[in-house]
Amino acid sequence: METATLSAQLAAIVGAHHVHAADRLADRDTGFHPENFDAGLAVYPATTGQVAQVVALCARHRIPIVTHGGLTGLSGGAASQTGNVILGLRRMDALLELDPLAGTVVVEAGAILETVERAANEHGLSIGIDLGARGTATIGGMIATNAGGMEAFRNGSMRSRLLGIEAVTPNGAVLNDLTEVPKCNEGYDLKHLFCGAEGTLGIVTRAVLRLTPATAPTTTLLIAVDSAASALTITRACASAPAIDLLQTEIMWRNYATTVAAEIGLSHVLNFCDAPAYLLIELSATDPDAALDTLFTDPAVEAVTLNAVIAKNEKERAEIWRIREESFIVDNTVPHCQWYDISVPLSRIDGTITAIDSRLNALDPTLGIWVMGHLGDGNLHYTIGNGKPQSPERQTAEKRASLAKHSDPEKLRLMRAIKAAFDPDGIMNPGKVL
Amino acid sequence: METATLSAQLAAIVGAHHVHAADRLADRDTGFHPENFDAGLAVYPATTGQVAQVVALCARHRIPIVTHGGLTGLSGGAASQTGNVILGLRRMDALLELDPLAGTVVVEAGAILETVERAANEHGLSIGIDLGARGTATIGGMIATNAGGMEAFRNGSMRSRLLGIEAVTPNGAVLNDLTEVPKCNEGYDLKHLFCGAEGTLGIVTRAVLRLTPATAPTTTLLIAVDSAASALTITRACASAPAIDLLQTEIMWRNYATTVAAEIGLSHVLNFCDAPAYLLIELSATDPDAALDTLFTDPAVEAVTLNAVIAKNEKERAEIWRIREESFIVDNTVPHCQWYDISVPLSRIDGTITAIDSRLNALDPTLGIWVMGHLGDGNLHYTIGNGKPQSPERQTAEKRASLAKHSDPEKLRLMRAIKAAFDPDGIMNPGKVL
Repeated sequence: METATLSAQLAAIVGAHHVHAADRLADRDTGFHPENFDAGLAVYPATTGQVAQVVALCARHRIPIVTHGGLTGLSGGAASQTGNVILGLRRMDALLELDPLAGTVVVEAGAILETVERAANEHGLSIGIDLGARGTATIGGMIATNAGGMEAFRNGSMRSRLLGIEAVTPNGAVLNDLTEVPKCNEGYDLKHLFCGAEGTLGIVTRAVLRLTPATAPTTTLLIAVDSAASALTITRACASAPAIDLLQTEIMWRNYATTVAAEIGLSHVLNFCDAPAYLLIELSATDPDAALDTLFTDPAVEAVTLNAVIAKNEKERAEIWRIREESFIVDNTVPHCQWYDISVPLSRIDGTITAIDSRLNALDPTLGIWVMGHLGDGNLHYTIGNGKPQSPERQTAEKRASLAKHSDPEKLRLMRAIKAAFDPDGIMNPGKVL
Repeated sequence: METATLSAQLAAIVGAHHVHAADRLADRDTGFHPENFDAGLAVYPATTGQVAQVVALCARHRIPIVTHGGLTGLSGGAASQTGNVILGLRRMDALLELDPLAGTVVVEAGAILETVERAANEHGLSIGIDLGARGTATIGGMIATNAGGMEAFRNGSMRSRLLGIEAVTPNGAVLNDLTEVPKCNEGYDLKHLFCGAEGTLGIVTRAVLRLTPATAPTTTLLIAVDSAASALTITRACASAPAIDLLQTEIMWRNYATTVAAEIGLSHVLNFCDAPAYLLIELSATDPDAALDTLFTDPAVEAVTLNAVIAKNEKERAEIWRIREESFIVDNTVPHCQWYDISVPLSRIDGTITAIDSRLNALDPTLGIWVMGHLGDGNLHYTIGNGKPQSPERQTAEKRASLAKHSDPEKLRLMRAIKAAFDPDGIMNPGKVL
């Protein structure tokens, strides 16, 4: 179909003002991937009904659809190309219902994480998931990518927060599975298929999320350690201390922490100890002083603590967190670097980093690596680079050096069978996941 | 194929001693469903390879397979009929690896819940899920049914404990997805499809489970309340008190509690208050007395507490738990009753029970209802009966009166598409789920 005809038909569904051609998209911030707007045609529906009509129209003409949320993803799930239609959910950002007694919230998929969190906070509740991109990331995007973040170690990743979904399937039908109960065994759990599927099985339009009691931190610590194993020892001591509610446990390796701190003028925060790694612990305790006394007199903790500082006020707390959160500032020092997001069994974190280090060194000794991540669940973020642009072949080699991708043939066969069953014409976010 | 030929071919895979014909099955306890052994032919493999060979053999001849775990399920997922082959996993009960640092355990699907829990306890860890049937229920069965239980409100149901699986798919292939990390976004999350699928998509043979720090309760309370809403108020106060780690929150309505207590000679436990409902709370606190003082001087809690008793010793604690756990004793007083397992949004528990009560009363005023369940996640168990055998039509009518089954047509279509993609010949546990 001609682009003009398609635009007109899309405009008939959502209104001309909400169909954006290449000229209007050219000015937009592409978010974290340069190809996000390459489709050159975007449609912004206001209701699930409009999403269904857009999908049905595209399905009839076999036009591929790429769904857009907040565009904060690092792995290119929102990248598009000429001939695709971008379906953006930014107009569908309503918080539809918050039930404080049941501890649930129903939102549209375009709702922003921070907005939902603030609404929950008003009732002493929290959505129980947090990301650096909280001001931009959408609930729908977090479902599509099964987002993890800093609270995943205690509350699970996005799929653990998800009670129900409404989704538009690739034929333009609406799947209503807006369950509000945690355990619902009425057959196959479809929401868990949509979660993490990067929009390749359909478009999530609404979600029911489980809320958790909000717990304010009483204490923020930065602890210098020699390894992830040492940091884990401290984390486990906190987690099993009855007087301590462990809220955050983040780890930053020296190269990452010193680079970011220098870039944002906070090197003094790390002056207390030059260490191989820094553990950021946040906890809640009714008697914080007593809790810390117990913790640091535990011989196991004492043995692995090189040094530690406690944030004395909100300013010091904010400084510690800025070093952890302003990760993309690494790009300033090391242009053209590549970001990775991996999960490693906790007992193998140190070994994995050593192995990546030596493989990279063998590939090119000028390549550096900057690593930080969520210690509670072994979800690490790192960037690799030497300041020079890398060829696509080189990027692939770096990726291979960093990851040994394990894919089981039967797993791949079943994933393909699911994709074919849901989306036989392959119009939903083609080329992603499979 | 003749049964004798089939038996011989199965014996060639697992050994003649591990193929049981109708005569050997006749003596077996059928577990919680009378039709569990109706197939009259059962095979007990020792390895995943043997499971795969059995499935491949059955697939070639399109012989339906019903997988058996501990046979503690109430909804007939293990029921079989003539012409089926029962594949029992009781020989595959090994605990393969427990990593205390990573907090993970790898087990064979036939491993018993209590065995795994004891092994975890030796390292100060817990599997984080608990059921009355802990001495018999298998990990595989708990995955197939997405078991919930008494800790689901804090640790999630079985799917939340599951990091990875190995499964034999309906064509006899082995799916290896034994991931050991909580967040693993390598495509569609197949383990969540197998979880709750009642063995209709394949046979889970191994699982990786996440462990959680074991927390011993310091205090067990039985609190008399007038409704689930009142019980929830107390539960929420406990959950949000920083000094209290809420471990259990179970509810029993009067009819259930008094019937079971009378039957097991523990009526004195309830003498402290004749109340519409009883809330069983178990918690951990470093200073239990101070924690309870804070709790019961909270005006919101005071307002809804009719009366309360604290277990003074292990004997009293055990007596309270026996009333909650010996639920099947209701069958003694009310023969032929039917058990149900539903999940209700927390804010609608009282309304749901009132509605079921009045629908049952309209159907037959002699029908009684005995209700208890997990208040933390609204998962209720109840039995309905009047001591007389009910015809199948009557059972269906009771079921309708008790549940308004909501199924979305698009959900059903997608579930059928998944079943067809995984099991085109429909040999895995036919007639279940769909």
